[in-house]
Amino acid sequence: MSVVYLVMGLALIQYQYFGFQVGRARTRFGVKAPAVTGNEPFERYFRVQQNTLELIVVLVPALPLFAYYVSARWAAGLGAVYLIGRIVYSIGYIKDPAKRGPGFGLSFLPIVLLLLGGIVGAARAVFTG
Amino acid sequence: MSVVYLVMGLALIQYQYFGFQVGRARTRFGVKAPAVTGNEPFERYFRVQQNTLELIVVLVPALPLFAYYVSARWAAGLGAVYLIGRIVYSIGYIKDPAKRGPGFGLSFLPIVLLLLGGIVGAARAVFTG
Amino acid sequence: MSVVYLVMGLALIQYQYFGFQVGRARTRFGVKAPAVTGNEPFERYFRVQQNTLELIVVLVPALPLFAYYVSARWAAGLGAVYLIGRIVYSIGYIKDPAKRGPGFGLSFLPIVLLLLGGIVGAARAVFTG
Repeated sequence: MSVVYLVMGLALIQYQYFGFQVGRARTRFGVKAPAVTGNEPFERYFRVQQNTLELIVVLVPALPLFAYYVSARWAAGLGAVYLIGRIVYSIGYIKDPAKRGPGFGLSFLPIVLLLLGGIVGAARAVFTG
Repeated sequence: MSVVYLVMGLALIQYQYFGFQVGRARTRFGVKAPAVTGNEPFERYFRVQQNTLELIVVLVPALPLFAYYVSARWAAGLGAVYLIGRIVYSIGYIKDPAKRGPGFGLSFLPIVLLLLGGIVGAARAVFTG
Repeated sequence: MSVVYLVMGLALIQYQYFGFQVGRARTRFGVKAPAVTGNEPFERYFRVQQNTLELIVVLVPALPLFAYYVSARWAAGLGAVYLIGRIVYSIGYIKDPAKRGPGFGLSFLPIVLLLLGGIVGAARAVFTG
């Protein structure tokens, strides 16, 4: 399971890095707290972090669920695809928000697979006892 | 415990469905990324997802804590009430944000009970254990 | 481990309290849902909750990872520092957003340490295990 927790930890570090980029963008574009809107370039950095937050709350529980009911190796592999997908997403979004699609798909799909695998595994354990 | 993980997985799927609705509302109401404000109907879908995000980060750890220290059966039951409450909340909010109260209460109350049960259980284990 | 789960539960209760403050600020400053911007004093309360959400999704998994791979006692201690840091942050931000720095640091640093400890522990288990 440790490889799954390692991938989880790396996903959390990556997410914190996006948060760090938001802080830097605040200074660079002169967006004073508590504002988070009103400056389009800043909003790109902010939305990358927020969208990653939206996904990571699913990734973090889905990783151990999938690992427990299906396979720890496959959980780690799907988690690694997520990590790469988020790099693509982040770079794409900051260049041009209209081009965020591919990176989003590459990071969202592994989460869907992890979650569905975990749910099917848990359901089978409940109904077959 | 599998029934608790099943409920957790369903709550995460429901949350992702709300996220999917936000994506569809973006297209429908012509709200271009990175914007998330400026179109009131879009903001309703967005706030349903965001409010669910705000709750799910508590629900996900509270479910296994309550199951471990109190009862897995009751954890699953309270989680099921949450799931129904979020359906009511989502439909109510999108119709009229002023009517989001009942659905919010029905999804928030089980989380409070799960969390308090988990905290009391952990505190008892610390101080008597 | 129960002391770690107790600290986790207290962090989640504290976060819910910040959410409760947002609800109260909505009434007090007359900000009608779905709006979350347009009223600076309201936005302070909202950003305190949102920033806590951004951190808590890392804190919650980092606590048990650190406890498992490094030390449950130290995990609980660092979690306690986080709790105090968030009180300082919340009070500071609401008084004056420009003075949110010290409280942010005091709550962010323990999370970074918990996460790095968890990652190093998991990596060692993977590569030596």
